[in-house]
This record gives sequence, C-alpha cells and structure tokens, in this order.
Amino acid sequence: MNQIVIEKTNQVTEILRAKGLDLWLTFVRDTSAGEDPVLPLIYGDAGLTWHSALIFSAKGDKIAIVGRFEAETARNVGAYDHVIAYDEDIRPALLGELQKLDPQQIAVNYSDNDSMADGLSHGMYRNLMGLLEGTPFTNRIVSAEHLISALRGRKTKSEVERIQRAITSTLEIYEEAFTQLQVGMSEIEVASIFHASVENQKLGYAWPKNNNPAVNTGPNSPVGHNAPTELLIEPGHLVHFDFGVKEDDYCADIQRMVYFLKEGETEAPIPVMNGFETIVKAIQRAFSIIKPGVPGIEVDAAARAVVTDAGYPEYKYATGHQVGRLAHDGGTLLGPAWERYGKTPYLLVEEGQVYTLEPGLMVPGYGYVGLEENIIVTHDGAEFLAPPQTSLILK
Amino acid sequence: MNQIVIEKTNQVTEILRAKGLDLWLTFVRDTSAGEDPVLPLIYGDAGLTWHSALIFSAKGDKIAIVGRFEAETARNVGAYDHVIAYDEDIRPALLGELQKLDPQQIAVNYSDNDSMADGLSHGMYRNLMGLLEGTPFTNRIVSAEHLISALRGRKTKSEVERIQRAITSTLEIYEEAFTQLQVGMSEIEVASIFHASVENQKLGYAWPKNNNPAVNTGPNSPVGHNAPTELLIEPGHLVHFDFGVKEDDYCADIQRMVYFLKEGETEAPIPVMNGFETIVKAIQRAFSIIKPGVPGIEVDAAARAVVTDAGYPEYKYATGHQVGRLAHDGGTLLGPAWERYGKTPYLLVEEGQVYTLEPGLMVPGYGYVGLEENIIVTHDGAEFLAPPQTSLILK
Repeated sequence: MNQIVIEKTNQVTEILRAKGLDLWLTFVRDTSAGEDPVLPLIYGDAGLTWHSALIFSAKGDKIAIVGRFEAETARNVGAYDHVIAYDEDIRPALLGELQKLDPQQIAVNYSDNDSMADGLSHGMYRNLMGLLEGTPFTNRIVSAEHLISALRGRKTKSEVERIQRAITSTLEIYEEAFTQLQVGMSEIEVASIFHASVENQKLGYAWPKNNNPAVNTGPNSPVGHNAPTELLIEPGHLVHFDFGVKEDDYCADIQRMVYFLKEGETEAPIPVMNGFETIVKAIQRAFSIIKPGVPGIEVDAAARAVVTDAGYPEYKYATGHQVGRLAHDGGTLLGPAWERYGKTPYLLVEEGQVYTLEPGLMVPGYGYVGLEENIIVTHDGAEFLAPPQTSLILK
Repeated sequence: MNQIVIEKTNQVTEILRAKGLDLWLTFVRDTSAGEDPVLPLIYGDAGLTWHSALIFSAKGDKIAIVGRFEAETARNVGAYDHVIAYDEDIRPALLGELQKLDPQQIAVNYSDNDSMADGLSHGMYRNLMGLLEGTPFTNRIVSAEHLISALRGRKTKSEVERIQRAITSTLEIYEEAFTQLQVGMSEIEVASIFHASVENQKLGYAWPKNNNPAVNTGPNSPVGHNAPTELLIEPGHLVHFDFGVKEDDYCADIQRMVYFLKEGETEAPIPVMNGFETIVKAIQRAFSIIKPGVPGIEVDAAARAVVTDAGYPEYKYATGHQVGRLAHDGGTLLGPAWERYGKTPYLLVEEGQVYTLEPGLMVPGYGYVGLEENIIVTHDGAEFLAPPQTSLILK
C-alpha cells in the first residue's frame, strides 16, 4: 500500500463528477519504456508490462485490468476494488467492463497543452481505437486533461508534507553552500558543492543534475537551462542559483541571489539594488493576486508588468509553474499567451496547488537577477511555503 | 559530450538510407514529464522543456531546434551540426528546415507494437499535425519504428561493454547472496540481501526494486512480476530468482535456480531434475537457432516446443526480449503470435542485438523453474554474455 496512491485515487470519483465525466481510462504498456506521468499517482512505482487498463467511474468503480503475472502486484497497490487478470488479449475483459459501465464519455490521457496529462502514446491511442473498433465507444473518447490537471494540482496532506520537506532540504543546502562561496570559484566548482550535499544526504534532483543547480556568475554567463561553465566568480558579479532537490518523490524549485562586493563597496551598487528590488516586488505582486478562480495569465501579467514598468525587457518564460512530483508539474501555468504554452495560461488557479513565482531580469554589467519562491494556494489567497528572499546576500 | 550519444547518432544516417527514409523527426516537450525512450540515445540526459525537434536526414543533416534557453545545452551534446534556438513558437524554424530538406517521408516516433519506438505522445502528434497543417508534409508522416528498432538493437562497442559490466555485477551479487541463503528465510528477507548489495555498490535496478529480485520459494509462491512475499524457504523447495542491475545506464536480466535438499536427499528429486533439464535444453535449443535474419517467433517456437514436448504446459510469456538501456528494450521479440505482442515476434533478429532466453515451467509440489541467460547475436549465430546455469544449485 502506497499512502499517496490511496489518497490520490480517493480524489478521483469526486473530480470525475465535477468534470461531468462518466469514466477515466488510463491505458498503458511497458511502463519501463517511458511512463504515463499520472501512473505514480494512481498505481505507484510497480510498473506494468502488458497492455493494462486502469478504470475509474463516476459511480466509484476502481478497476485494474492487467496481464496475469502482474495481477498480484495490482492487488497489492490497494487502490483497486476489482483486479482482472488476462493471458493473451486484453480486449475481452476491457470491452466487457466498458459494456457493463456503458460510459457516455471515456476520458483518456492525451492533451495538446499539458504534458502531465499526455501520457497516452500515439501508438497506444491507435491500439485503443483498434480494440474499440465496431463499438459505440470509439465516438466517446475525450481528453482527460482537466481531470488529470485537477488530480495532480490538488495536493493531498501527504503531498504537501513531502514538498515542505524538499523545500527545507533545498534551503539548508543553499545555506551551507553559501558559507563556502568565494571569489575565484568557477560555476562548475560551485555546483559541485551542492552536488556533494545532495548525494551525502541521499536526496534526488528535482531536475537533471547537469543544470541543477544552475549557477550564473556575472554578466557573461548564459542564462537558462544551461549547465554551469568554467566562468569564475569575480568581485562585482551577481551570482544566480536555480536549485531544487527531490525528496520522497516530491520536488522543490528555488532560485536565490548573491552579490560579490567589489573592493571598497559596502553594499550592492544602485543598478543591482534596483534590479533585485524589482524582482522582489514582482513576486509580491503575483503573490497578492493569486487565488482560486484566477486564470494563470493574470498572475503572469501582473508580475511581468512590474518588470517592464521598471524599464527592463520582459523575461522570456512564464512567471510560475506548478511543483509536485516534478519540478514542472503541468496543469495551469502562470504564463503569457505564447504558442509554446498552449492553453495552460488560461486555466484557472485552484486551492491546494503549489506554484513557483520566478520573474527575472538582466542587470547589464553585473549579471542576471532571478528569484524563485514556492507557494501554496489557499481558499482565498496563497501562502509562501518558506520565507522568500527579500534582501540580496552580500559576500 | 556523451560517448554513447555520439556513437548512436553516427548510426542514424546509414539506417535511414537502409530503411528508405528521407528524414527522422523526434518531436518532444517537457521531457521531465515522461521521456521519449529514444532520447537518451540521441540527446543524452539533459532534458528538453519546450517543443523541440531533433532532425536527422538521409543526406547526413543533424539538426536540433530547441527553446532559446536550451540551445547551449543542445550544442554541448556534440551530436548536432546545426542548433536552432527559438523564443515563442517552433513553427517558423521547423517548417523552414522541412521546406529546405523537402523529405518525401517524415518518420516520427509512434509504433503500434514497439513501445521503445512509441515515444511521441498522442497530444504531441496532434500538435505536430497542427504545425504542419496546410503543408504537403501532413501526408508524409510515417512510423519510425523500423529505424528506432534498428538503432536501439544494434549495440555499439560502448553499449556492449556496459551490458557486460552489468551482467558481471549481477552475477557477483547472485554469488554473494547464494552463500547466505538458508531454510526459514522469507522471500522478502532474501530480496533484502540483494538490495543491500545493489545499494552498497551504488548500482541501479534494471527494473523496479519492488520485484527485483523476484524471489519464488516452493510451489505456492505467485510467479510473475510480483513482489517477494512472507513465504519461507523450506526443505524441498525450488527457489527461483529473477534479478538484474543497471550499471552506467545499461541493464542485465538474469534468472537463477536453487534447490533446498530435504533431510536425507543428496540430490534433487527426479521431477525437479527433469524440470530443470528441460529448461536448460529449451535455452540451448533457442541458442542453437538464433542468428541474423531469423524471425523472433521461430526462436520462441523452438524453445517452447522443448517444454511442451516434455509434457509441461507452455509458459505464458515470450521466450526472450532484447536488453539494453532497459531490461525490456523493445524491437524484435522472441515471442509467440499473441495479440499482446503485436507484430514484434515477426520482426527479424539482427547482428549486434542482445537478447534474454528465459523459458519456464512449474514442477508441481516443488516450485517454479525458470532460467534466463543473456546472449548477443553475432554475424552467424550468437554468444552467451556469461556462462549459462546448467546445473541446479543445491543447498
């Protein structure tokens, strides 16, 4: 029994009803090849080899149809009231269950916009349509994206506790690393301090190690999803970090800023201060607006305007994304109306979702300023999951 | 630079030509959500966040179109001659490259049968068709399954070395664990001996830890992809193991057999010996037949017939699968013509592929007998990658 799977599968019936869907079908095979991202929420980490169907109905049915050799494992998940084992062909059992339930909508895991709800491969979609051929069900297939978005987004008690632990560990590693930073270290050396802590504590990485942490020192460091370089920290550099651990399968994703004083400086120069204050203000602005029912694009626009109103070019990415099992956990995005984000910025913020807030800007001659805080949406607003950075760390 | 990615991408042009394909397009986003299984071979582990296109042409072009923030990472992969960065919309760059190359076939990563070649999600397929709308390319989309099957299957020198290392580690852990086995231990306790070795040596699991190793003691243990149970080893039990480590991203997958003598026994009883010898013989039969050009189904039929000719029921799974980055590495399957295997048993064996041979049978009253050996296909036959088990281990 996996506590998270029990909590998450117990959310499904209510969400199906709220979304007006009769049935949700997760159809997978060979999960070792690349897993439907919803599977850890509704099946755990056991893996499924043969064509397998996990079925939830709005009436409360929870059915797993799996290859004979995996039936025992499916029963041990503890979330399915009815486990059906088959030997050669899933079709008879699958059609039998569908005929019994006769759903008017069969929601399956594809989404044009939300990669977390897009775990059905195109080949498996073709397989499913082949299995259903000649039945009325072929015309009842719809996207499960709204269901999955709600299910992933609405964090259960255990999920919030795990995210909190990941945030705590991330901030502790930051604090320890900051005591060791020195002029003359390369970005790569700095990253290795973080890596040593992650590995000593047997934690995981919230995104791949090669750019976790991202470390950007000074004005010439390429900013984005890049690996740290051989560039050295110099006096007068802004140093930007983007770092997060994965702990017990849940992630943190936090950016922090340090400024290295030049000889004779006792505080950061005015352009650096202005840039930093602008980002702090942009985060506070987004935080003050976010609440259930607000579309993501409005939160993005509010933070983005703080940066552009202060005269900086707009940042080329979204203000915030959800955090959970993955650093980028899909669903509603606090983002602008750009093609690459599809419709996710138009989706609504819901209670229980965890978001990053992460505006950024470049201070010419000094480097990049980016902060990233993690917040949880409450019934009428939001709370920071850890104290935000509001003053520049000086070294 | 990732040596495996360099070796694998260097195989692509020749395979495209051999398969009569002008162009191969891998189209992905948000790989942290669930990765196209071909990506580690052609891009490494850096991850891609926004809509990204990796293009190989039969003329030898190697092009990556990625979000601006990931362009530096894409260049550092070292496999792409041309890296194109975009900000908001991949469409202009993607259509531009396709128009320049004007391919008559665009192979994309979907497959009805081979999950390793089925990394394109249904939502991303819909996105791609939307991007190509109004161009002649919508009618030139074909499956890349034969290309990917050849690419994954034909192991390079570095890949074979890594598989060999994983096999060596797997067998060493078996040997050490076998010294500790005792009557009265539970399957769960036995599995924990293996887990301790894997974790002390900082190795990975070739498939999920919850059933790696699988441990089946005696006639009442549920056999298949099940987690070990509280059943205890007793005298007169056959104990079956299915275990494999992942080392440097490559897997081993090996089954071994132990028999616990009853008081007074000096060898295994006749039914146990007969069952064991039948499985050894079935493996030898498959091994003697496998060579390039033979369909997988013929190898399966040969081994399967040894078991059924000896009077045992046929095993309800394939005789063998490919091994590589994954324990179940897709492509040609040494399997029977069952719906759940699709067309994979009809595909041909090729030189350089690594397969398991793993027939099995139940000896009533004693337990399950299954052995699994790992072999590599040579130009005119095959070689065992480690000495096969040919006599029952007695305890």
